[in-house]
Amino acid sequence: MLKLYDFLESGNGYKVRLLLHQLGLDFERIELDIVRGATRTPEFLARNPNGRIPVLELEDGTHLAESNAIQWYLADGTAFLPRDPVERAQVLQWMFFEQYSHEPYIATVRFWMHTGAADEKAAEIAARRPRGVEALRVMDGHLASRAFFVGGRYSIADIALYAYTHVAHEGGFDLTPHRHVRAWLDRVRGQPGHVPISAA
Amino acid sequence: MLKLYDFLESGNGYKVRLLLHQLGLDFERIELDIVRGATRTPEFLARNPNGRIPVLELEDGTHLAESNAIQWYLADGTAFLPRDPVERAQVLQWMFFEQYSHEPYIATVRFWMHTGAADEKAAEIAARRPRGVEALRVMDGHLASRAFFVGGRYSIADIALYAYTHVAHEGGFDLTPHRHVRAWLDRVRGQPGHVPISAA
Repeated sequence: MLKLYDFLESGNGYKVRLLLHQLGLDFERIELDIVRGATRTPEFLARNPNGRIPVLELEDGTHLAESNAIQWYLADGTAFLPRDPVERAQVLQWMFFEQYSHEPYIATVRFWMHTGAADEKAAEIAARRPRGVEALRVMDGHLASRAFFVGGRYSIADIALYAYTHVAHEGGFDLTPHRHVRAWLDRVRGQPGHVPISAA
Repeated sequence: MLKLYDFLESGNGYKVRLLLHQLGLDFERIELDIVRGATRTPEFLARNPNGRIPVLELEDGTHLAESNAIQWYLADGTAFLPRDPVERAQVLQWMFFEQYSHEPYIATVRFWMHTGAADEKAAEIAARRPRGVEALRVMDGHLASRAFFVGGRYSIADIALYAYTHVAHEGGFDLTPHRHVRAWLDRVRGQPGHVPISAA
């Protein structure tokens, strides 16, 4: 059976969990408390030398890291990843946007506020917040004329961006001005087999 | 003809340029001075609302952004991207590692030192340097038993990581302790059709 090394509050872990649920695949979930260093043990570093969850362990013992690479592996050949070469590149474009221009700002600020580091990290949070707002602005502009990020259909690009956008308020981000993003969040939540981030 | 919106000093632009050269594809290169705001004009933002190079313009006018997504589009079906599903996911794993755990530290420090911001950004540089060293350490460990990042063959995962690793010294990173990385840099430089970052 597939094994997912995971942390329930992680949006990166949630991307893989949500997709596994929507694909109807059984998996064993192994919860690792990243705040207490569970991803920095020699045992875990043998699975991912970069010391991060999620990691998917395949039946033959191969380990895959990086949430969006795992999503690609699971989704290829299914309805969650288009077949057209340009649309596939666009899915990757939005997944790289998510990891470079969205996650380091929106997810990181949320993590600090979640773990009681808001005071200690106040200067960092103030520096990162505008770039998170900018990512939301780019998303809102794209969604102004589209139901989903790529090809008019729900795909792993939507899952990648939903993961931390739907909890952005936990990092103090106000989605009120981004009405196209809010309507898209509702569309993603309405997909068959959707489960919340808290669902193991 | 393909058009590449580019900036010659950018490792992200170089990834696409190098691959286009190695694939033997003709392209028109449009140089944009990112330091002077050439990617923040309304004209460019219509091509990439996220305001970053590289952007590839296809013959039908479609624009693709994000260096590693563009690489995937160009390489799929060629010798630069494996066919095996697990190896394809591993290529993506290393490309996401590059954008999340490598580029924000190694490339960003180099950029600040290049653009005369080393004094102004001294505290930021000091904070980011250890994470760049950590990325080099992860690469070195992986390459200790491998000639290339995935499947024993040169691929776009190698191009993605070569782009900023081979100029890491310009950001003050010392590659001396990372001997497997240095040997791999030589192997990448020795590939047919290799061109330096300064080759337009």
